[in-house]
Amino acid sequence: MSTPIVILVRPQLGENIGMAARAMLNGGLTEMRLVRPRDGWPNEAAWAAASGADRVLDEAKLYATVADAIADLNHVYATTARSRAQAKPIVTARQAGAELRDLIADTRRCGVLFGPERAGLENDEVAAADTVLTVPLNPDFTSLNLAQAVLLLAYEWYQAGDQTPGRYLAGGADVPAPKAEFENFMDRLVAHLERGGFMTEPQLRHTVTRNLRNLFQRAAPTEQELRTLHGAVKALTKAGTPE
Amino acid sequence: MSTPIVILVRPQLGENIGMAARAMLNGGLTEMRLVRPRDGWPNEAAWAAASGADRVLDEAKLYATVADAIADLNHVYATTARSRAQAKPIVTARQAGAELRDLIADTRRCGVLFGPERAGLENDEVAAADTVLTVPLNPDFTSLNLAQAVLLLAYEWYQAGDQTPGRYLAGGADVPAPKAEFENFMDRLVAHLERGGFMTEPQLRHTVTRNLRNLFQRAAPTEQELRTLHGAVKALTKAGTPE
Repeated sequence: MSTPIVILVRPQLGENIGMAARAMLNGGLTEMRLVRPRDGWPNEAAWAAASGADRVLDEAKLYATVADAIADLNHVYATTARSRAQAKPIVTARQAGAELRDLIADTRRCGVLFGPERAGLENDEVAAADTVLTVPLNPDFTSLNLAQAVLLLAYEWYQAGDQTPGRYLAGGADVPAPKAEFENFMDRLVAHLERGGFMTEPQLRHTVTRNLRNLFQRAAPTEQELRTLHGAVKALTKAGTPE
Repeated sequence: MSTPIVILVRPQLGENIGMAARAMLNGGLTEMRLVRPRDGWPNEAAWAAASGADRVLDEAKLYATVADAIADLNHVYATTARSRAQAKPIVTARQAGAELRDLIADTRRCGVLFGPERAGLENDEVAAADTVLTVPLNPDFTSLNLAQAVLLLAYEWYQAGDQTPGRYLAGGADVPAPKAEFENFMDRLVAHLERGGFMTEPQLRHTVTRNLRNLFQRAAPTEQELRTLHGAVKALTKAGTPE
């Protein structure tokens, strides 16, 4: 599958081009286009800042105008930090990630324009795009550098195709133990606690047992961990009362 | 509402601390804690790289150990680039953003640990946390610098509380025109096209009209844009045929 093309328009610092390449590759984006980089191209400062994402820079293509850089593309996004009062759809980075997956699955060639560090894209460059991309961020501090803006796009592109569960326990084998083994531990724990005089009042016994059960249930122990707990209980009974 | 505390553990470069502060503020995070920064604290290089996020650095607190830095917290995440084979829940950055909103709404004090630039957190530091946070990224290139990792957390925290629609048209007044006005334009367009001989074959007339209707419907013109289109049709009829 092809990936969205990142188009840096009149970038100023080679270092930022290199950091943008690194951010792209973090999210699996490999195609970079450059429109009139200020300090010329190739620029050693870019490779120095790319932390190994050289391949993106090696294959970057140079263009004289935005129109040239997007001429072969079917759908183009323009990133802006602020609204430009143009009657054009605006999407979040998250929405762009999902849309780009759909568009590219539908064989469209897609690109995302990023403006120069200080000024951003010119209004006519924004107008050349189909859709504006604006990242929702703290309105009191939206100063986002070029590589960070590229990172958020690359990140959302990657997330839109990623299957990692939101929350899971490390290690496939580390599933919580079957309930029968959990009950076996609880029975043993309660028996030892009773012998040790922990639950002398009969009416509290049920409540205390339930509290302990809830605590250990929340931890969702694995079989291995239940064995460790059995050992701990045994050791505690042997330890006796310290003088 | 309080916000998650970003805890940088043994950060090496002051510049990275400053860029992390900037990334935090992008997502509305303001509380930074530092555990034994390599080059001491305060460090001028941090302020120089913060792009105006000075407030975060001014209020950063210094700690001698991770245990000290998390002593008053109720829930702690540890960021890691790779799985550590610890039987601990792992969450994505997106999940962490949502969970942190819930935890903090429930009055928990929450923090997120970030390790030093090269080595990351030590295993015992990871074990001190409740939950591991790992950002799903290109497995062939996971090299993410400290400030970028902080940015992705701050970004997801912000998104989890943000109400921006995924896709909308710029400007609240720029809603698509009522259908009656759209039909009025289509009628006029078709009438002029017929007069100009565009749809001579009667059996194609319905099809062509429908194609044009679909094209203009996709653009979803506003009232202002319909006026512009009316004007354009009028001008074209006046322009006559070029010799």
